[in-house]
Amino acid sequence: MIATGGDEHFMRHALREAELAFKADEVPIGAVITCKEQVIARAHNLTERLNDVTAHAEMQAITAAAGHIGGKYLTECTVYVTVEPCPMCAAALRWAQVGRIVFGAFDEKAGYRRIGGVLLHPKTQVTGGVLEPECADLMKAFFKRKRAL
Amino acid sequence: MIATGGDEHFMRHALREAELAFKADEVPIGAVITCKEQVIARAHNLTERLNDVTAHAEMQAITAAAGHIGGKYLTECTVYVTVEPCPMCAAALRWAQVGRIVFGAFDEKAGYRRIGGVLLHPKTQVTGGVLEPECADLMKAFFKRKRAL
Repeated sequence: MIATGGDEHFMRHALREAELAFKADEVPIGAVITCKEQVIARAHNLTERLNDVTAHAEMQAITAAAGHIGGKYLTECTVYVTVEPCPMCAAALRWAQVGRIVFGAFDEKAGYRRIGGVLLHPKTQVTGGVLEPECADLMKAFFKRKRAL
Repeated sequence: MIATGGDEHFMRHALREAELAFKADEVPIGAVITCKEQVIARAHNLTERLNDVTAHAEMQAITAAAGHIGGKYLTECTVYVTVEPCPMCAAALRWAQVGRIVFGAFDEKAGYRRIGGVLLHPKTQVTGGVLEPECADLMKAFFKRKRAL
């Protein structure tokens, strides 16, 4: 899984979203969706504020991106997300037929890979580990802070 | 998988939601969520109207139910849905830690069972096949109409 300079650039956008989540005391996961190298949607986890388990960064970004392009299918889009998507988000990205997923930190416990690539659309390409240390460190800092409370 | 009278009663509520979807030219799937034998949320598929692949009946019902009870977790709730949940909805119901899922028609192609019960929370109980003929007939009628267009 090789990251390009472009991937790191857009992952930094997603990281900024994750930092907003961190500041709001939400699990710090951020996502942006690009189309033709342009960011068309950005979101961060809001499960606490919205009191809604479905309010993951990717889910909100899918909804926003579909609104932006005026179509449900994101075949020409790339989703950048700071942490490996969970099964719910992976399956949503399958419905959206997203072209590519780029994620930062691996999530051995709650990530979709625990169940398998069958959750994704067969045409979706995946790159993992982009800016992994920064993405993972934000998660570690969040849970360390939680444990200290 | 044995259906009780109560299950059939609430599945008829979900079927009414599915019929609303049918009339709106949406894939006819409806859901209600109950808590202590009271309906606290109802929704139907709105993926076309909202232009959003995440707008499945169950997803909207989870959001509405959490709003109703003022908490993210639906451990005391039962979800009635006219068709076997897809992997996205099953994984969302896992996050919500829903107590029980009752579904109508089986979905061998797009249902969560194709991937497996690992998508669900280990404490979630499942009953399938409640009012299966009515639930399945509505889906068949929808796709027959689509093919005739």
